[in-house]
Amino acid sequence: MLTNRRDVQIQWGDCDPANIVYYPRYFEMFDDSTSALFAAAGCSKQDLVRVYGLVGIPMVDTRAKFYIPSTYGDVITIESRIEKFNRSSFEVTHRVLKGEALAIEAFETRVLVGRDPADPDKLKSTAIPAEIVEKFKRG
Amino acid sequence: MLTNRRDVQIQWGDCDPANIVYYPRYFEMFDDSTSALFAAAGCSKQDLVRVYGLVGIPMVDTRAKFYIPSTYGDVITIESRIEKFNRSSFEVTHRVLKGEALAIEAFETRVLVGRDPADPDKLKSTAIPAEIVEKFKRG
Amino acid sequence: MLTNRRDVQIQWGDCDPANIVYYPRYFEMFDDSTSALFAAAGCSKQDLVRVYGLVGIPMVDTRAKFYIPSTYGDVITIESRIEKFNRSSFEVTHRVLKGEALAIEAFETRVLVGRDPADPDKLKSTAIPAEIVEKFKRG
Amino acid sequence: MLTNRRDVQIQWGDCDPANIVYYPRYFEMFDDSTSALFAAAGCSKQDLVRVYGLVGIPMVDTRAKFYIPSTYGDVITIESRIEKFNRSSFEVTHRVLKGEALAIEAFETRVLVGRDPADPDKLKSTAIPAEIVEKFKRG
Repeated sequence: MLTNRRDVQIQWGDCDPANIVYYPRYFEMFDDSTSALFAAAGCSKQDLVRVYGLVGIPMVDTRAKFYIPSTYGDVITIESRIEKFNRSSFEVTHRVLKGEALAIEAFETRVLVGRDPADPDKLKSTAIPAEIVEKFKRG
Repeated sequence: MLTNRRDVQIQWGDCDPANIVYYPRYFEMFDDSTSALFAAAGCSKQDLVRVYGLVGIPMVDTRAKFYIPSTYGDVITIESRIEKFNRSSFEVTHRVLKGEALAIEAFETRVLVGRDPADPDKLKSTAIPAEIVEKFKRG
Repeated sequence: MLTNRRDVQIQWGDCDPANIVYYPRYFEMFDDSTSALFAAAGCSKQDLVRVYGLVGIPMVDTRAKFYIPSTYGDVITIESRIEKFNRSSFEVTHRVLKGEALAIEAFETRVLVGRDPADPDKLKSTAIPAEIVEKFKRG
Repeated sequence: MLTNRRDVQIQWGDCDPANIVYYPRYFEMFDDSTSALFAAAGCSKQDLVRVYGLVGIPMVDTRAKFYIPSTYGDVITIESRIEKFNRSSFEVTHRVLKGEALAIEAFETRVLVGRDPADPDKLKSTAIPAEIVEKFKRG
Protein backbone atom coordinates (compact mmCIF):
# COMPACT_ATOMS: atom_id res chain seq x y z
CA MET A 1 0.00 0.00 0.00
CA LEU A 2 1.06 3.55 -0.61
CA THR A 3 3.07 5.14 2.21
CA ASN A 4 3.25 8.93 2.45
CA ARG A 5 6.04 10.68 4.35
CA ARG A 6 6.03 14.31 5.36
CA ASP A 7 8.20 16.44 7.61
CA VAL A 8 6.55 18.70 10.17
CA GLN A 9 8.35 21.35 12.16
CA ILE A 10 6.99 21.71 15.67
CA GLN A 11 5.83 25.27 16.31
CA TRP A 12 5.90 27.39 19.47
CA GLY A 13 2.10 27.30 19.67
CA ASP A 14 2.09 23.48 19.52
CA CYS A 15 3.87 23.39 22.88
CA ASP A 16 2.64 23.70 26.45
CA PRO A 17 4.15 25.05 29.67
CA ALA A 18 6.16 21.81 30.07
CA ASN A 19 7.89 22.87 26.82
CA ILE A 20 6.74 19.78 24.91
CA VAL A 21 4.03 19.31 22.29
CA TYR A 22 0.54 19.54 23.77
CA TYR A 23 -0.62 16.06 22.67
CA PRO A 24 -3.96 17.06 21.01
CA ARG A 25 -1.82 18.92 18.43
CA TYR A 26 -0.42 15.56 17.30
CA PHE A 27 -3.94 14.44 16.40
CA GLU A 28 -4.26 17.54 14.22
CA MET A 29 -0.97 16.57 12.54
CA PHE A 30 -2.24 13.02 12.05
CA ASP A 31 -5.49 14.26 10.55
CA ASP A 32 -3.49 16.44 8.15
CA SER A 33 -1.27 13.42 7.41
CA THR A 34 -4.26 11.26 6.50
CA SER A 35 -5.43 14.08 4.20
CA ALA A 36 -1.94 14.23 2.67
CA LEU A 37 -2.01 10.45 2.16
CA PHE A 38 -5.30 10.73 0.28
CA ALA A 39 -3.90 13.59 -1.82
CA ALA A 40 -0.77 11.51 -2.55
CA ALA A 41 -3.04 8.70 -3.74
CA GLY A 42 -4.68 11.10 -6.18
CA CYS A 43 -7.89 11.41 -4.21
CA SER A 44 -7.80 14.56 -2.07
CA LYS A 45 -10.44 15.37 0.53
CA GLN A 46 -11.77 17.95 -1.92
CA ASP A 47 -12.15 15.15 -4.49
CA LEU A 48 -14.11 13.09 -1.97
CA VAL A 49 -16.59 15.96 -1.79
CA ARG A 50 -16.55 17.30 -5.35
CA VAL A 51 -15.97 14.12 -7.39
CA TYR A 52 -17.65 11.52 -5.21
CA GLY A 53 -20.32 13.64 -3.51
CA LEU A 54 -19.23 12.46 -0.06
CA VAL A 55 -18.76 14.41 3.18
CA GLY A 56 -15.59 13.15 4.79
CA ILE A 57 -13.77 10.40 6.65
CA PRO A 58 -14.62 10.87 10.33
CA MET A 59 -12.76 9.05 13.08
CA VAL A 60 -14.29 5.96 14.67
CA ASP A 61 -11.44 4.80 16.89
CA THR A 62 -7.95 6.21 17.37
CA ARG A 63 -4.99 5.46 19.57
CA ALA A 64 -1.56 7.00 19.97
CA LYS A 65 1.44 5.82 21.98
CA PHE A 66 3.98 8.49 22.81
CA TYR A 67 7.60 7.37 23.29
CA ILE A 68 9.75 10.48 22.76
CA PRO A 69 8.63 14.08 23.36
CA SER A 70 9.35 16.97 20.97
CA THR A 71 9.57 20.70 21.39
CA TYR A 72 9.39 23.76 19.12
CA GLY A 73 11.96 23.85 16.37
CA ASP A 74 12.18 20.04 16.22
CA VAL A 75 11.42 18.42 12.88
CA ILE A 76 9.53 15.14 12.94
CA THR A 77 8.77 12.82 10.02
CA ILE A 78 5.29 11.33 9.83
CA GLU A 79 4.93 8.12 7.78
CA SER A 80 1.32 7.26 7.03
CA ARG A 81 -0.32 4.35 5.28
CA ILE A 82 -3.63 2.56 5.07
CA GLU A 83 -3.21 -0.93 6.51
CA LYS A 84 -6.57 -2.31 5.53
CA PHE A 85 -9.78 -1.41 3.74
CA ASN A 86 -13.06 -2.82 5.01
CA ARG A 87 -16.45 -2.24 3.41
CA SER A 88 -16.95 1.35 4.55
CA SER A 89 -14.11 1.73 7.06
CA PHE A 90 -10.34 1.62 6.79
CA GLU A 91 -7.36 1.51 9.10
CA VAL A 92 -4.51 4.00 9.02
CA THR A 93 -1.21 3.94 10.88
CA HIS A 94 1.13 6.88 11.45
CA ARG A 95 4.72 6.37 12.56
CA VAL A 96 6.45 9.51 13.84
CA LEU A 97 10.22 9.47 13.55
CA LYS A 98 12.77 11.79 15.14
CA GLY A 99 15.89 10.98 13.17
CA GLU A 100 16.05 7.18 13.33
CA ALA A 101 14.03 6.85 16.53
CA LEU A 102 10.34 5.96 16.68
CA ALA A 103 8.73 8.81 18.65
CA ILE A 104 5.01 8.03 18.34
CA GLU A 105 2.80 5.33 16.86
CA ALA A 106 -0.80 6.14 16.02
CA PHE A 107 -3.68 4.04 14.77
CA GLU A 108 -6.94 5.17 13.24
CA THR A 109 -10.14 3.52 12.13
CA ARG A 110 -12.07 5.88 9.92
CA VAL A 111 -15.27 5.53 7.99
CA LEU A 112 -16.28 7.01 4.67
CA VAL A 113 -19.51 9.00 5.02
CA GLY A 114 -21.99 10.83 2.85
CA ARG A 115 -25.22 12.63 3.66
CA ASP A 116 -28.04 10.37 4.73
CA PRO A 117 -30.60 10.51 1.85
CA ALA A 118 -33.41 10.23 4.42
CA ASP A 119 -32.12 13.20 6.47
CA PRO A 120 -29.40 15.38 4.90
CA ASP A 121 -28.46 16.73 8.36
CA LYS A 122 -27.19 13.26 9.24
CA LEU A 123 -24.12 11.37 8.08
CA LYS A 124 -24.28 7.81 6.79
CA SER A 125 -21.43 5.37 6.12
CA THR A 126 -20.86 4.46 2.48
CA ALA A 127 -19.15 1.51 0.80
CA ILE A 128 -15.67 2.59 -0.30
CA PRO A 129 -15.61 2.70 -4.13
CA ALA A 130 -13.22 0.05 -5.55
CA GLU A 131 -11.72 2.85 -7.64
CA ILE A 132 -10.56 4.64 -4.47
CA VAL A 133 -9.12 1.45 -2.97
CA GLU A 134 -7.16 0.88 -6.19
CA LYS A 135 -5.46 4.28 -5.89
CA PHE A 136 -3.78 3.22 -2.62
CA LYS A 137 -2.60 -0.12 -4.00
CA ARG A 138 -0.47 1.58 -6.61
CA GLY A 139 1.91 3.04 -3.99
CA MET B 1 -12.27 6.45 43.18
CA LEU B 2 -13.40 10.01 42.69
CA THR B 3 -15.45 10.64 39.54
CA ASN B 4 -15.74 14.17 38.15
CA ARG B 5 -18.58 15.20 35.85
CA ARG B 6 -18.64 18.36 33.78
CA ASP B 7 -20.83 19.67 30.99
CA VAL B 8 -19.23 21.07 27.88
CA GLN B 9 -21.09 22.96 25.19
CA ILE B 10 -19.73 22.30 21.72
CA GLN B 11 -18.66 25.53 20.05
CA TRP B 12 -18.78 26.61 16.41
CA GLY B 13 -14.98 26.56 16.23
CA ASP B 14 -14.87 22.96 17.51
CA CYS B 15 -16.64 21.81 14.34
CA ASP B 16 -15.40 21.08 10.84
CA PRO B 17 -16.94 21.37 7.36
CA ALA B 18 -18.86 18.13 7.96
CA ASN B 19 -20.63 20.04 10.75
CA ILE B 20 -19.41 17.71 13.49
CA VAL B 21 -16.70 18.11 16.13
CA TYR B 22 -13.20 17.95 14.64
CA TYR B 23 -11.96 15.01 16.71
CA PRO B 24 -8.67 16.53 17.99
CA ARG B 25 -10.86 19.02 19.88
CA TYR B 26 -12.17 16.13 21.99
CA PHE B 27 -8.64 15.41 23.17
CA GLU B 28 -8.40 19.04 24.32
CA MET B 29 -11.67 18.55 26.22
CA PHE B 30 -10.32 15.32 27.76
CA ASP B 31 -7.10 17.03 28.79
CA ASP B 32 -9.16 19.78 30.45
CA SER B 33 -11.31 17.07 32.07
CA THR B 34 -8.28 15.36 33.58
CA SER B 35 -7.18 18.76 34.92
CA ALA B 36 -10.67 19.27 36.34
CA LEU B 37 -10.52 15.83 37.96
CA PHE B 38 -7.24 16.74 39.68
CA ALA B 39 -8.71 20.06 40.81
CA ALA B 40 -11.79 18.23 42.14
CA ALA B 41 -9.45 15.95 44.13
CA GLY B 42 -7.89 19.03 45.73
CA CYS B 43 -4.68 18.81 43.73
CA SER B 44 -4.84 21.16 40.77
CA LYS B 45 -2.21 21.23 38.02
CA GLN B 46 -0.95 24.44 39.60
CA ASP B 47 -0.51 22.54 42.88
CA LEU B 48 1.51 19.88 41.08
CA VAL B 49 3.91 22.63 40.05
CA ARG B 50 3.83 24.95 43.05
CA VAL B 51 3.31 22.53 45.94
CA TYR B 52 5.06 19.42 44.64
CA GLY B 53 7.70 21.02 42.38
CA LEU B 54 6.64 18.84 39.43
CA VAL B 55 6.14 19.72 35.76
CA GLY B 56 3.02 17.94 34.59
CA ILE B 57 1.25 14.73 33.65
CA PRO B 58 2.12 14.10 29.99
CA MET B 59 0.33 11.49 27.92
CA VAL B 60 1.93 8.11 27.34
CA ASP B 61 -0.88 6.28 25.57
CA THR B 62 -4.41 7.39 24.70
CA ARG B 63 -7.33 5.94 22.83
CA ALA B 64 -10.80 7.19 21.99
CA LYS B 65 -13.77 5.40 20.45
CA PHE B 66 -16.37 7.62 18.86
CA TYR B 67 -19.95 6.33 18.76
CA ILE B 68 -22.18 9.41 18.33
CA PRO B 69 -21.15 12.69 16.68
CA SER B 70 -21.96 16.12 18.10
CA THR B 71 -22.27 19.57 16.59
CA TYR B 72 -22.16 23.18 17.84
CA GLY B 73 -24.75 24.02 20.44
CA ASP B 74 -24.87 20.42 21.72
CA VAL B 75 -24.10 19.90 25.39
CA ILE B 76 -22.12 16.80 26.31
CA THR B 77 -21.31 15.48 29.78
CA ILE B 78 -17.80 14.19 30.42
CA GLU B 79 -17.36 11.75 33.33
CA SER B 80 -13.75 11.25 34.29
CA ARG B 81 -12.02 9.04 36.82
CA ILE B 82 -8.68 7.47 37.55
CA GLU B 83 -9.01 3.70 37.23
CA LYS B 84 -5.61 2.76 38.58
CA PHE B 85 -2.44 4.24 39.99
CA ASN B 86 0.89 2.60 39.18
CA ARG B 87 4.28 3.71 40.54
CA SER B 88 4.68 6.81 38.38
CA SER B 89 1.85 6.35 35.87
CA PHE B 90 -1.92 6.24 36.17
CA GLU B 91 -4.92 5.35 34.02
CA VAL B 92 -7.82 7.69 33.34
CA THR B 93 -11.11 6.99 31.60
CA HIS B 94 -13.52 9.55 30.19
CA ARG B 95 -17.10 8.66 29.28
CA VAL B 96 -18.91 11.22 27.13
CA LEU B 97 -22.66 11.18 27.43
CA LYS B 98 -25.27 12.85 25.23
CA GLY B 99 -28.38 12.59 27.35
CA GLU B 100 -28.43 8.93 28.35
CA ALA B 101 -26.39 7.70 25.40
CA LEU B 102 -22.68 6.89 25.51
CA ALA B 103 -21.15 9.06 22.77
CA ILE B 104 -17.41 8.51 23.27
CA GLU B 105 -15.14 6.42 25.49
CA ALA B 106 -11.56 7.54 26.03
CA PHE B 107 -8.64 5.98 27.85
CA GLU B 108 -5.42 7.60 28.97
CA THR B 109 -2.18 6.43 30.51
CA ARG B 110 -0.32 9.41 31.89
CA VAL B 111 2.89 9.71 33.83
CA LEU B 112 3.86 12.15 36.54
CA VAL B 113 7.04 14.01 35.62
CA GLY B 114 9.46 16.49 37.14
CA ARG B 115 12.66 18.02 35.82
CA ASP B 116 15.56 15.61 35.48
CA PRO B 117 18.09 16.67 38.19
CA ALA B 118 20.90 15.68 35.81
CA ASP B 119 19.55 17.88 32.96
CA PRO B 120 16.77 20.36 33.82
CA ASP B 121 15.84 20.60 30.12
CA LYS B 122 14.65 17.00 30.30
CA LEU B 123 11.62 15.48 31.98
CA LYS B 124 11.85 12.46 34.26
CA SER B 125 9.07 10.28 35.65
CA THR B 126 8.49 10.50 39.39
CA ALA B 127 6.85 8.15 41.88
CA ILE B 128 3.34 9.41 42.62
CA PRO B 129 3.25 10.67 46.24
CA ALA B 130 0.94 8.51 48.40
CA GLU B 131 -0.64 11.76 49.57
CA ILE B 132 -1.83 12.48 46.01
CA VAL B 133 -3.19 8.96 45.54
CA GLU B 134 -5.15 9.34 48.79
CA LYS B 135 -6.93 12.43 47.49
CA PHE B 136 -8.56 10.41 44.70
CA LYS B 137 -9.67 7.61 47.02
CA ARG B 138 -11.84 9.95 49.02
CA GLY B 139 -14.22 10.48 46.08
CA MET C 1 -27.37 47.22 24.26
CA LEU C 2 -27.23 43.80 25.87
CA THR C 3 -23.91 42.97 27.58
CA ASN C 4 -23.03 39.34 28.25
CA ARG C 5 -20.47 38.35 30.90
CA ARG C 6 -18.90 34.94 31.23
CA ASP C 7 -16.01 33.53 33.24
CA VAL C 8 -13.40 31.44 31.51
CA GLN C 9 -10.75 29.40 33.30
CA ILE C 10 -7.47 29.31 31.42
CA GLN C 11 -6.43 25.74 30.67
CA TRP C 12 -3.00 24.11 30.49
CA GLY C 13 -3.38 23.61 26.73
CA ASP C 14 -4.16 27.32 26.23
CA CYS C 15 -0.63 28.18 27.38
CA ASP C 16 2.71 28.16 25.59
CA PRO C 17 6.30 27.53 26.73
CA ALA C 18 6.46 31.08 28.16
CA ASN C 19 3.72 29.87 30.56
CA ILE C 20 1.18 32.44 29.32
CA VAL C 21 -1.85 32.09 27.06
CA TYR C 22 -0.89 31.51 23.43
CA TYR C 23 -2.71 34.54 22.01
CA PRO C 24 -4.65 32.79 19.18
CA ARG C 25 -6.53 30.97 21.97
CA TYR C 26 -7.99 34.33 23.04
CA PHE C 27 -9.57 34.72 19.62
CA GLU C 28 -11.23 31.33 20.11
CA MET C 29 -12.54 32.58 23.46
CA PHE C 30 -13.80 35.78 21.81
CA ASP C 31 -15.53 33.83 19.07
CA ASP C 32 -17.22 31.69 21.73
CA SER C 33 -18.10 34.89 23.61
CA THR C 34 -19.80 36.39 20.55
CA SER C 35 -21.75 33.13 20.19
CA ALA C 36 -22.69 33.34 23.89
CA LEU C 37 -23.83 36.94 23.38
CA PHE C 38 -26.11 35.88 20.53
CA ALA C 39 -27.47 33.02 22.64
CA ALA C 40 -28.07 35.46 25.53
CA ALA C 41 -30.04 37.67 23.14
CA GLY C 42 -32.27 34.73 22.27
CA CYS C 43 -30.76 34.14 18.86
CA SER C 44 -28.15 31.39 19.02
CA LYS C 45 -25.87 30.53 16.11
CA GLN C 46 -28.02 27.46 15.59
CA ASP C 47 -31.05 29.78 15.28
CA LEU C 48 -29.20 31.82 12.64
CA VAL C 49 -28.94 28.64 10.59
CA ARG C 50 -32.18 26.84 11.42
CA VAL C 51 -34.60 29.74 11.89
CA TYR C 52 -33.16 32.33 9.51
CA GLY C 53 -31.54 30.05 6.91
CA LEU C 54 -28.21 31.86 7.23
CA VAL C 55 -24.67 30.48 7.41
CA GLY C 56 -22.82 32.47 10.03
CA ILE C 57 -21.20 35.70 11.13
CA PRO C 58 -17.66 35.60 9.74
CA MET C 59 -15.00 38.07 10.82
CA VAL C 60 -14.19 41.06 8.63
CA ASP C 61 -11.79 42.95 10.88
CA THR C 62 -10.57 42.23 14.38
CA ARG C 63 -8.10 43.76 16.78
CA ALA C 64 -6.95 42.88 20.28
CA LYS C 65 -4.76 44.80 22.72
CA PHE C 66 -3.12 42.72 25.42
CA TYR C 67 -2.32 44.47 28.71
CA ILE C 68 -2.01 41.71 31.33
CA PRO C 69 -0.98 38.09 30.63
CA SER C 70 -2.74 35.07 32.14
CA THR C 71 -1.69 31.51 32.80
CA TYR C 72 -3.42 28.17 33.45
CA GLY C 73 -5.71 28.14 36.44
CA ASP C 74 -6.44 31.87 36.14
CA VAL C 75 -10.08 32.86 35.76
CA ILE C 76 -10.85 35.77 33.45
CA THR C 77 -14.18 37.50 32.88
CA ILE C 78 -15.13 38.36 29.29
CA GLU C 79 -17.70 41.15 28.86
CA SER C 80 -19.12 41.27 25.34
CA ARG C 81 -21.54 43.62 23.62
CA ILE C 82 -22.53 44.79 20.18
CA GLU C 83 -21.64 48.46 19.87
CA LYS C 84 -23.32 49.13 16.56
CA PHE C 85 -25.39 47.48 13.87
CA ASN C 86 -24.86 48.49 10.25
CA ARG C 87 -26.85 47.15 7.29
CA SER C 88 -25.22 43.72 7.12
CA SER C 89 -22.29 44.17 9.50
CA PHE C 90 -22.00 44.84 13.22
CA GLU C 91 -19.35 45.77 15.73
CA VAL C 92 -18.58 43.79 18.86
CA THR C 93 -16.28 44.65 21.75
CA HIS C 94 -14.90 42.25 24.34
CA ARG C 95 -13.36 43.48 27.59
CA VAL C 96 -11.34 40.89 29.49
CA LEU C 97 -11.07 41.51 33.22
CA LYS C 98 -8.77 39.88 35.76
CA GLY C 99 -10.33 40.91 39.03
CA GLU C 100 -10.81 44.65 38.61
CA ALA C 101 -8.04 45.10 36.05
CA LEU C 102 -8.58 45.40 32.31
CA ALA C 103 -6.42 42.61 30.82
CA ILE C 104 -7.41 42.71 27.12
CA GLU C 105 -9.62 44.79 24.84
CA ALA C 106 -10.85 43.29 21.59
CA PHE C 107 -12.83 44.69 18.69
CA GLU C 108 -14.64 42.85 15.93
CA THR C 109 -16.45 43.77 12.78
CA ARG C 110 -18.50 40.83 11.59
CA VAL C 111 -20.91 40.39 8.76
CA LEU C 112 -24.06 38.32 8.54
CA VAL C 113 -23.89 35.91 5.61
CA GLY C 114 -26.04 33.41 3.81
CA ARG C 115 -25.43 31.21 0.78
CA ASP C 116 -25.17 33.14 -2.49
CA PRO C 117 -28.34 32.19 -4.47
CA ALA C 118 -26.28 32.39 -7.69
CA ASP C 119 -23.63 29.97 -6.36
CA PRO C 120 -24.40 28.07 -3.14
CA ASP C 121 -20.66 27.37 -2.62
CA LYS C 122 -20.18 31.10 -2.02
CA LEU C 123 -21.17 33.27 0.92
CA LYS C 124 -23.03 36.55 0.49
CA SER C 125 -23.68 39.27 3.03
CA THR C 126 -27.28 39.76 4.10
CA ALA C 127 -29.17 42.68 5.64
CA ILE C 128 -29.55 42.05 9.36
CA PRO C 129 -33.25 41.40 10.10
CA ALA C 130 -34.72 44.19 12.30
CA GLU C 131 -36.07 41.43 14.53
CA ILE C 132 -32.53 40.31 15.35
CA VAL C 133 -31.37 43.88 16.05
CA GLU C 134 -34.31 44.30 18.44
CA LYS C 135 -33.21 41.30 20.52
CA PHE C 136 -29.96 43.06 21.44
CA LYS C 137 -31.68 46.33 22.38
CA ARG C 138 -33.65 44.67 25.14
CA GLY C 139 -30.50 43.99 27.21
CA MET D 1 14.02 44.90 5.77
CA LEU D 2 13.96 41.17 5.27
CA THR D 3 10.68 39.78 3.90
CA ASN D 4 9.87 36.09 4.36
CA ARG D 5 7.36 34.30 2.14
CA ARG D 6 5.86 30.90 2.85
CA ASP D 7 3.03 28.89 1.37
CA VAL D 8 0.46 27.34 3.65
CA GLN D 9 -2.13 24.80 2.57
CA ILE D 10 -5.42 25.19 4.40
CA GLN D 11 -6.37 21.98 6.17
CA TRP D 12 -9.76 20.40 6.85
CA GLY D 13 -9.38 21.07 10.59
CA ASP D 14 -8.71 24.76 9.95
CA CYS D 15 -12.25 25.15 8.61
CA ASP D 16 -15.59 25.58 10.31
CA PRO D 17 -19.17 24.56 9.44
CA ALA D 18 -19.40 27.52 7.02
CA ASN D 19 -16.64 25.73 5.08
CA ILE D 20 -14.16 28.59 5.48
CA VAL D 21 -11.13 29.01 7.73
CA TYR D 22 -12.08 29.52 11.37
CA TYR D 23 -10.35 32.89 11.83
CA PRO D 24 -8.38 32.12 15.04
CA ARG D 25 -6.43 29.59 12.92
CA TYR D 26 -5.06 32.50 10.87
CA PHE D 27 -3.51 33.94 14.02
CA GLU D 28 -1.75 30.60 14.57
CA MET D 29 -0.46 30.82 10.98
CA PHE D 30 0.71 34.40 11.59
CA ASP D 31 2.49 33.40 14.78
CA ASP D 32 4.23 30.61 12.88
CA SER D 33 5.05 33.13 10.13
CA THR D 34 6.70 35.51 12.59
CA SER D 35 8.72 32.55 13.90
CA ALA D 36 9.68 31.66 10.31
CA LEU D 37 10.72 35.29 9.71
CA PHE D 38 13.01 35.19 12.75
CA ALA D 39 14.46 31.86 11.58
CA ALA D 40 15.01 33.33 8.09
CA ALA D 41 16.91 36.22 9.72
CA GLY D 42 19.19 33.70 11.40
CA CYS D 43 17.71 34.15 14.85
CA SER D 44 15.17 31.41 15.52
CA LYS D 45 12.91 31.40 18.56
CA GLN D 46 15.14 28.67 19.97
CA ASP D 47 18.10 31.07 19.56
CA LEU D 48 16.19 33.75 21.49
CA VAL D 49 16.01 31.32 24.39
CA ARG D 50 19.29 29.44 24.14
CA VAL D 51 21.65 32.14 22.79
CA TYR D 52 20.12 35.28 24.30
CA GLY D 53 18.55 33.84 27.47
CA LEU D 54 15.17 35.38 26.63
CA VAL D 55 11.67 33.93 26.89
CA GLY D 56 9.77 34.98 23.79
CA ILE D 57 8.07 37.70 21.78
CA PRO D 58 4.53 37.94 23.15
CA MET D 59 1.82 39.90 21.40
CA VAL D 60 0.93 43.40 22.59
CA ASP D 61 -1.52 44.48 19.88
CA THR D 62 -2.71 42.69 16.76
CA ARG D 63 -5.20 43.37 14.01
CA ALA D 64 -6.31 41.45 10.95
CA LYS D 65 -8.55 42.50 8.06
CA PHE D 66 -10.12 39.68 6.11
CA TYR D 67 -10.96 40.33 2.46
CA ILE D 68 -11.20 36.90 0.78
CA PRO D 69 -12.12 33.63 2.54
CA SER D 70 -10.29 30.36 1.97
CA THR D 71 -11.25 26.74 2.42
CA TYR D 72 -9.43 23.40 2.80
CA GLY D 73 -7.11 22.52 -0.04
CA ASP D 74 -6.49 26.19 -0.89
CA VAL D 75 -2.88 27.34 -0.83
CA ILE D 76 -2.19 30.82 0.51
CA THR D 77 1.09 32.73 0.52
CA ILE D 78 2.01 34.65 3.67
CA GLU D 79 4.50 37.50 3.25
CA SER D 80 5.91 38.72 6.56
CA ARG D 81 8.27 41.52 7.48
CA ILE D 82 9.21 43.70 10.41
CA GLU D 83 8.23 47.27 9.61
CA LYS D 84 9.88 48.95 12.56
CA PHE D 85 11.99 48.23 15.62
CA ASN D 86 11.42 50.26 18.77
CA ARG D 87 13.42 49.91 21.99
CA SER D 88 11.88 46.66 23.21
CA SER D 89 8.94 46.30 20.80
CA PHE D 90 8.66 45.82 17.05
CA GLU D 91 5.98 45.90 14.38
CA VAL D 92 5.28 43.04 11.99
CA THR D 93 2.98 42.93 8.97
CA HIS D 94 1.66 39.84 7.23
CA ARG D 95 0.10 39.99 3.77
CA VAL D 96 -1.85 36.90 2.73
CA LEU D 97 -2.11 36.37 -1.00
CA LYS D 98 -4.37 34.01 -2.93
CA GLY D 99 -2.78 34.02 -6.35
CA GLU D 100 -2.43 37.75 -7.09
CA ALA D 101 -5.22 38.87 -4.77
CA LEU D 102 -4.70 40.29 -1.28
CA ALA D 103 -6.79 38.04 0.97
CA ILE D 104 -5.83 39.26 4.48
CA GLU D 105 -3.69 41.99 6.02
CA ALA D 106 -2.43 41.55 9.57
CA PHE D 107 -0.50 43.81 11.91
CA GLU D 108 1.35 42.92 15.08
CA THR D 109 3.14 44.80 17.81
CA ARG D 110 5.24 42.39 19.81
CA VAL D 111 7.67 42.88 22.64
CA LEU D 112 10.88 41.05 23.45
CA VAL D 113 10.73 39.62 26.98
CA GLY D 114 12.97 37.84 29.45
CA ARG D 115 12.41 36.65 33.02
CA ASP D 116 12.10 39.44 35.56
CA PRO D 117 15.26 39.19 37.72
CA ALA D 118 13.20 40.29 40.74
CA ASP D 119 10.59 37.54 40.20
CA PRO D 120 11.43 34.77 37.69
CA ASP D 121 7.74 33.86 37.41
CA LYS D 122 7.15 37.23 35.73
CA LEU D 123 8.08 38.45 32.27
CA LYS D 124 9.86 41.76 31.69
CA SER D 125 10.44 43.61 28.43
CA THR D 126 14.05 43.83 27.26
CA ALA D 127 15.85 46.21 24.91
CA ILE D 128 16.25 44.50 21.54
CA PRO D 129 19.98 43.75 21.01
CA ALA D 130 21.40 45.80 18.08
CA GLU D 131 22.84 42.53 16.79
CA ILE D 132 19.31 41.12 16.34
CA VAL D 133 18.06 44.28 14.60
CA GLU D 134 21.01 44.05 12.17
CA LYS D 135 19.98 40.55 11.10
CA PHE D 136 16.70 41.86 9.70
CA LYS D 137 18.33 44.74 7.83
CA ARG D 138 20.35 42.37 5.69
CA GLY D 139 17.25 41.04 3.92
